[in-house]
Amino acid sequence: MRLVLLRHGESTWNKENRFTGWTDVDLSERGILEAQSAGDVLLREGYDFDCAFTSVLKRAIRTLWITLERMDRMWLPVTLSWKLNERHYGSLQALNKSEMAAKFGEDQVHTWRRSYDVRPPALERSDERFPGRDAMYRDVAPDVLPEAESLKDTVARVIPYYEDVIAPVIASGKRVLIAAHGNSMRALVKHLDGVSDSDIALLNIPTGIPLVYELDGMRAKKHYYLADEAVLAKALTDVAAQGAAKR
Amino acid sequence: MRLVLLRHGESTWNKENRFTGWTDVDLSERGILEAQSAGDVLLREGYDFDCAFTSVLKRAIRTLWITLERMDRMWLPVTLSWKLNERHYGSLQALNKSEMAAKFGEDQVHTWRRSYDVRPPALERSDERFPGRDAMYRDVAPDVLPEAESLKDTVARVIPYYEDVIAPVIASGKRVLIAAHGNSMRALVKHLDGVSDSDIALLNIPTGIPLVYELDGMRAKKHYYLADEAVLAKALTDVAAQGAAKR
Repeated sequence: MRLVLLRHGESTWNKENRFTGWTDVDLSERGILEAQSAGDVLLREGYDFDCAFTSVLKRAIRTLWITLERMDRMWLPVTLSWKLNERHYGSLQALNKSEMAAKFGEDQVHTWRRSYDVRPPALERSDERFPGRDAMYRDVAPDVLPEAESLKDTVARVIPYYEDVIAPVIASGKRVLIAAHGNSMRALVKHLDGVSDSDIALLNIPTGIPLVYELDGMRAKKHYYLADEAVLAKALTDVAAQGAAKR
Repeated sequence: MRLVLLRHGESTWNKENRFTGWTDVDLSERGILEAQSAGDVLLREGYDFDCAFTSVLKRAIRTLWITLERMDRMWLPVTLSWKLNERHYGSLQALNKSEMAAKFGEDQVHTWRRSYDVRPPALERSDERFPGRDAMYRDVAPDVLPEAESLKDTVARVIPYYEDVIAPVIASGKRVLIAAHGNSMRALVKHLDGVSDSDIALLNIPTGIPLVYELDGMRAKKHYYLADEAVLAKALTDVAAQGAAKR
């Protein structure tokens, strides 16, 4: 059994170096090209899917749409869930790197980025950025929605959804594609590979490159990126240079 | 309770005057603009939806995607079913108007287009155009898939799906959008308005203009198109001039 994960392509805010989180920004031109490449490589390598999952954020949805379009699989059933959203960055959302450093200091920002269980400052529920004020989450009980998340919180949201909803579909023999975000993918990778709390926040996942897991039961047997070695090496260098602020 | 139906915009084969049926052609440039207008008018008029349904054919899916994108509703759940596909035109699919007239005569072609219960010539199951040979229908039992359909056959496929799957969703209070095709929409309109067998094949439905049904229980109380009068008048003239060959 195989599972394919795909981190969405570059968004307009990645370019501006802002903490995005649950802010619903779209792909940049480069992000669109990345999604096209992802679809092309999956098709060329003979991959096919029975269904797909994505967050409710448009940079992941558009990445999925473009990928499916390139594979001539627009007709596949897609399940959307906020449980696959990016980590919620609380009141850091929309701030850029230099604004944050000026406001909180470099060290504090680094801690929020790279620790496993430290939450950034919470959003007030009256803040217009609070998800409970967005039509997108109108069917979700407001007290379930986050005001800010550590990576640990994101793991605690993503993995039960994976276990309860996605894993049974994979176990039934279906070929599943998940379009997700830097941190919801970290959560999945942590779970599948048994990565430690301290190592996972340091793991960099490149955008727009399919990550294939071969599963034995529900454990990862091996995993690999679908890309030429040179392309992958460059993507990994890029994502490491970006750091977490561009996530 | 309200239900909104939307016939997909112009496809590349509409332009070439060919019988499309289940052939999976994409929207033309004009079709894309029509879908954008549909989304814009729905948004401007204050419409919102809880979920959407579409066929598995990309001209309907893309119409829906574009409409949802313009309404900032990319995150809505979408259910796809081949039961909402266009009428299957059998071995007429891919032929253009003049090829057909030369092969079968104008009168016969007119009968296939405008009768309620006359099937066009069937596809051989060995024909590469038979749906059972397409990955899109790999989960459907081949003996359920049509080799050709009269409008009556299309009604017999669309209406049970509407009654079993869509109507309960509407009855539960959800706001539903259906992206469909000339003849799957005829089937729905026939059902909702109680149109006679002889009248329904003569009813012209314009592309890319939302058709709103206000429902009382599951019966249509009234219906109207969401468009300026002048736009609608032109669209109705266009679709009448096109005739069924462009469907």
